[in-house]
Amino acid sequence: MTNWQASGVITITTDFGHKGPFAAVMTGVIVKRFPQARVIDLAHDIPAHWPPEAGFWLSRSYPYFPTGTVHVAIVDPGVGTEREILLAMKDGHVFMAPDNGLLGPVLEDADSIYKLAHDAPDRIGAGTPSLTFHGRDIFAPIAAEIAAGRIGIADVGDETSQWTPGWLEDPESSNGRVAGVVVTVDAFGNLISNIDASLIDSFERPVVHIGGHDISMKPTYGRVNPGEYLALINSFGVVEIARSEDSAATGLGCERGAPVVVIDKAVG
Amino acid sequence: MTNWQASGVITITTDFGHKGPFAAVMTGVIVKRFPQARVIDLAHDIPAHWPPEAGFWLSRSYPYFPTGTVHVAIVDPGVGTEREILLAMKDGHVFMAPDNGLLGPVLEDADSIYKLAHDAPDRIGAGTPSLTFHGRDIFAPIAAEIAAGRIGIADVGDETSQWTPGWLEDPESSNGRVAGVVVTVDAFGNLISNIDASLIDSFERPVVHIGGHDISMKPTYGRVNPGEYLALINSFGVVEIARSEDSAATGLGCERGAPVVVIDKAVG
Amino acid sequence: MTNWQASGVITITTDFGHKGPFAAVMTGVIVKRFPQARVIDLAHDIPAHWPPEAGFWLSRSYPYFPTGTVHVAIVDPGVGTEREILLAMKDGHVFMAPDNGLLGPVLEDADSIYKLAHDAPDRIGAGTPSLTFHGRDIFAPIAAEIAAGRIGIADVGDETSQWTPGWLEDPESSNGRVAGVVVTVDAFGNLISNIDASLIDSFERPVVHIGGHDISMKPTYGRVNPGEYLALINSFGVVEIARSEDSAATGLGCERGAPVVVIDKAVG
Repeated sequence: MTNWQASGVITITTDFGHKGPFAAVMTGVIVKRFPQARVIDLAHDIPAHWPPEAGFWLSRSYPYFPTGTVHVAIVDPGVGTEREILLAMKDGHVFMAPDNGLLGPVLEDADSIYKLAHDAPDRIGAGTPSLTFHGRDIFAPIAAEIAAGRIGIADVGDETSQWTPGWLEDPESSNGRVAGVVVTVDAFGNLISNIDASLIDSFERPVVHIGGHDISMKPTYGRVNPGEYLALINSFGVVEIARSEDSAATGLGCERGAPVVVIDKAVG
Repeated sequence: MTNWQASGVITITTDFGHKGPFAAVMTGVIVKRFPQARVIDLAHDIPAHWPPEAGFWLSRSYPYFPTGTVHVAIVDPGVGTEREILLAMKDGHVFMAPDNGLLGPVLEDADSIYKLAHDAPDRIGAGTPSLTFHGRDIFAPIAAEIAAGRIGIADVGDETSQWTPGWLEDPESSNGRVAGVVVTVDAFGNLISNIDASLIDSFERPVVHIGGHDISMKPTYGRVNPGEYLALINSFGVVEIARSEDSAATGLGCERGAPVVVIDKAVG
Repeated sequence: MTNWQASGVITITTDFGHKGPFAAVMTGVIVKRFPQARVIDLAHDIPAHWPPEAGFWLSRSYPYFPTGTVHVAIVDPGVGTEREILLAMKDGHVFMAPDNGLLGPVLEDADSIYKLAHDAPDRIGAGTPSLTFHGRDIFAPIAAEIAAGRIGIADVGDETSQWTPGWLEDPESSNGRVAGVVVTVDAFGNLISNIDASLIDSFERPVVHIGGHDISMKPTYGRVNPGEYLALINSFGVVEIARSEDSAATGLGCERGAPVVVIDKAVG
């Protein structure tokens, strides 16, 4: 495993919510094996059974963590079925998630991709996993061993070139027009799309169509009056629709999945 | 204190929620006394003033943490009244909670049980506690000292054989029939009961009655079609009622406290 | 910077909520620069765009953290506009927040107050910040450097005597009467006011008027019957209105901002 130097950091992303001890028990399992681990909860409020949001945030967030971090993501409606578990290496980070499309945006240009061996828990002495909590019984102990630098992903997996693609189609680009969707809504009601800034870099007069509105692009939230809509390239590099000091989601009646189109008014 | 070797880990379980700095301030107090402590928030969304859920999760979760961990649990409608505080030792873990039934499932087979001495805060130089935030003023500093290995529970308490029993009755077992209740509902709407797997081990054809439905038992969530109900032994060893990719709680109109009966169709 | 000895601890208070990786990414940035940092999430459920609650909790909570802690607070409707960022030193703690009134209760008797220099990110090699996520791009890296003891606030700021005052007026005191407001409601529905205990110390028979009710003061929650209202000096030293084993906020129909008046019945 070229490029891998464990930092001891593990991030965890799930749809477990904050009711019950589910995420904490994963941390317990990690700490039991690797007392020096630093575990960072990335997000546990991913919508239940909707992997694309987890993959979106992971792919946009990982560069802010130390090289050598292990990122575990579990949104897993298929737990206990035949679905596989993937391990991917990219830019010196390791990603581990069910093979259900979650890792789509990460896998596209990963350095290497492995399927977790079915006997991987055995290989590290983790015992027989339960059928319903792989986060605790498979993901946590494997991540702990990798984050501790005691094993590499090749020690518990087999390289593969097949995986389930992401659930969201890439935005469609044509001359002066890009069509994407809302991936997630944040706590302020800002609508965050999957349209990367690079897709509209060349636009001279970009306008965002969403929920029946035409919205101009601004550099930041404070540049319109309270209550007015604006669109901007947000701090994770994608098109976001906001409403100054208010919720754009409520105002526009839009949610995750809503179509977002950016048009260059300078073209045609 | 035979059997005690501090791991430096402290878990915290409360009904404080995530509004306000209550849990974080407990962590601050711990870190001030014991900078190397590892504090893990087990759960803070326990329903207000309902200790049994905290005791249930603690008793089912503690084995996943390192031996030598101190588990603090505070669901405490009686804070500031004459209620006592208990310290228990079990399997090399220490448990600390108000004596209000919370620790019921832990105390049943604890190795030893102590009542916290009323002058315990004084003994460790913690000053006079407030009447309304014992978590910060009593639990946190005592837990920090125990987790640091500087004191044992016998140094701040007196052994006791009297405590408030748990709020939930043990499931009632008769020939081919076990009756329990829903202890908690998780973020997916799964209904988690207090019926331990061991109680239905011998059942040949177990069927779960709840909310007017008869539900078959399966090994895992993925074994029915989306929208169908199933029951299973979950990863914490108890009977759980789920609905594939949907909420069983909403579908069955059931909540915490709902009766759950498992019947062996092979009997009578 | 007299009085400063870094403890390595950083607290973070925001209105980011728990949806999305926003707070976690700040922790990632901190850990990347300062792997030994201990990051404690104080609260992330501050009401969106309402700085006074963050300032209230910070000013009441910081003494429970080790001397030498850096407290970062971000409730920042003006992110990306010309608003400044303040750094304050008080009792050996550092506070960092937008200059929008958030730090009001801390600044009143701070030991020193600085404005962050506009080129501060450059001075520590943090690159050009985004316009919309200063938490990640400015606050986190600056806090990491200060918490690591590698820089002092004077290295990245200029002393100032001008800042935006807090949003809440100080309680109004006259003979035997103090008028304040509800600052926040906790998870139990307790109404927490900005009336400090010292303001009613001399009252012989204090009664609290709120939501059309007259409520007596008690030492703690357990001293009335379930369902009855009481007022008390809470564990953070301010007047709080509670309802035993129930929600005072729901019962009285009161929220943040509601007027609270304490009257000494022994006067007039």
